[in-house]
Amino acid sequence: MTRRGRLIVLEGPDKSGKSTHAALLMDALRGRGLKTLHTREPGGTSFAEAVREILLDPRNKVHPLSELLLYEAARAQHTQELLLPALRAGKTIVCERYTLATLAYQGFGRGLSLPLVRRLNAAATSGLTADLTLVLDIPDARFLDRATTRTLDRLELESRRFRLTVARAYRRLARTEPRTVLIDADRPKAAVHEEILGRVSNAISRKPAS
Amino acid sequence: MTRRGRLIVLEGPDKSGKSTHAALLMDALRGRGLKTLHTREPGGTSFAEAVREILLDPRNKVHPLSELLLYEAARAQHTQELLLPALRAGKTIVCERYTLATLAYQGFGRGLSLPLVRRLNAAATSGLTADLTLVLDIPDARFLDRATTRTLDRLELESRRFRLTVARAYRRLARTEPRTVLIDADRPKAAVHEEILGRVSNAISRKPAS
Repeated sequence: MTRRGRLIVLEGPDKSGKSTHAALLMDALRGRGLKTLHTREPGGTSFAEAVREILLDPRNKVHPLSELLLYEAARAQHTQELLLPALRAGKTIVCERYTLATLAYQGFGRGLSLPLVRRLNAAATSGLTADLTLVLDIPDARFLDRATTRTLDRLELESRRFRLTVARAYRRLARTEPRTVLIDADRPKAAVHEEILGRVSNAISRKPAS
Repeated sequence: MTRRGRLIVLEGPDKSGKSTHAALLMDALRGRGLKTLHTREPGGTSFAEAVREILLDPRNKVHPLSELLLYEAARAQHTQELLLPALRAGKTIVCERYTLATLAYQGFGRGLSLPLVRRLNAAATSGLTADLTLVLDIPDARFLDRATTRTLDRLELESRRFRLTVARAYRRLARTEPRTVLIDADRPKAAVHEEILGRVSNAISRKPAS
């Protein structure tokens, strides 16, 4: 069956505004009469919820490689159950987080090999790639500012270092990955939305990615 | 650190006698004064239990590819948390099921691509392979005999077909995979154990696999 829809991905660190801008983008796309789907990884399936519980349960020791494979299992389910059927139905999908997040968090963040992460991304998605990935970028200070007023303990320092590593990885990946752009999200919401909408409109007018 | 232990894997369809022969083998190895570990996939960790719950929960739709990735996540955890430390400590491990099961069940059984299953096996184990894999083989009639007395419904027929496919896959893989032998388990327990012990003794005297 021909894939007619489009997969638009919003990426970026926590608190970069992904949900806000996904909602604004959805309104705009629906306003143009497009059939749409708003979703996020690991996805709203009961399967994904169960995976999330495993990752959050403090009794479980989770090795970075197991964590990666769990996310990929949830991604495979999300792709097969939601993304591919929506694309076949001609929908424009706005998805918060997809394969780029895994490169940023598990690759750069946890230090797993990037070729390994790419291979597993490709396996879990059966090769489905985004038509456009928008990386929302905010200054490091925006998610670190709580930390400046007092001394940090070891876990807080680790967590801070991890967030910085991920934010920098996103900026770097936005330069090197295909069909991926960095959006300066440290501006008034309307200006950010306008840029996003322009980029998405261009992507929708192009041929689908794969 | 040098890997000094050995990884011995028992494989085969349900009811082929893996647990019985694992216990007999463990007794024999301990009797020789070896340091040992008896384990099984997906492994007794709380992580593995949680994965098993996902797979058994009837609310979860689980695509074959997600199922594969979940098993690989549990395998990665089991390998890092139990197998590799035991091998480094010089133990002889008797493990019920490992990568061959995934080729038989997810590859041949669910119809996933064998190269894909092999790639994910390699990723999840970080390349750790068994020193010896023993495939316990029983005649198809042994696990199908309940079925001969009455007409089967669709699910029972599917389940029967799946079991047959897996049993045949195991026989085929035993011929083609390295360091893998088929054991005729349709004999008195003592005879089967004797053959297993002979094969394992040889494997232990050889250089480790990887």
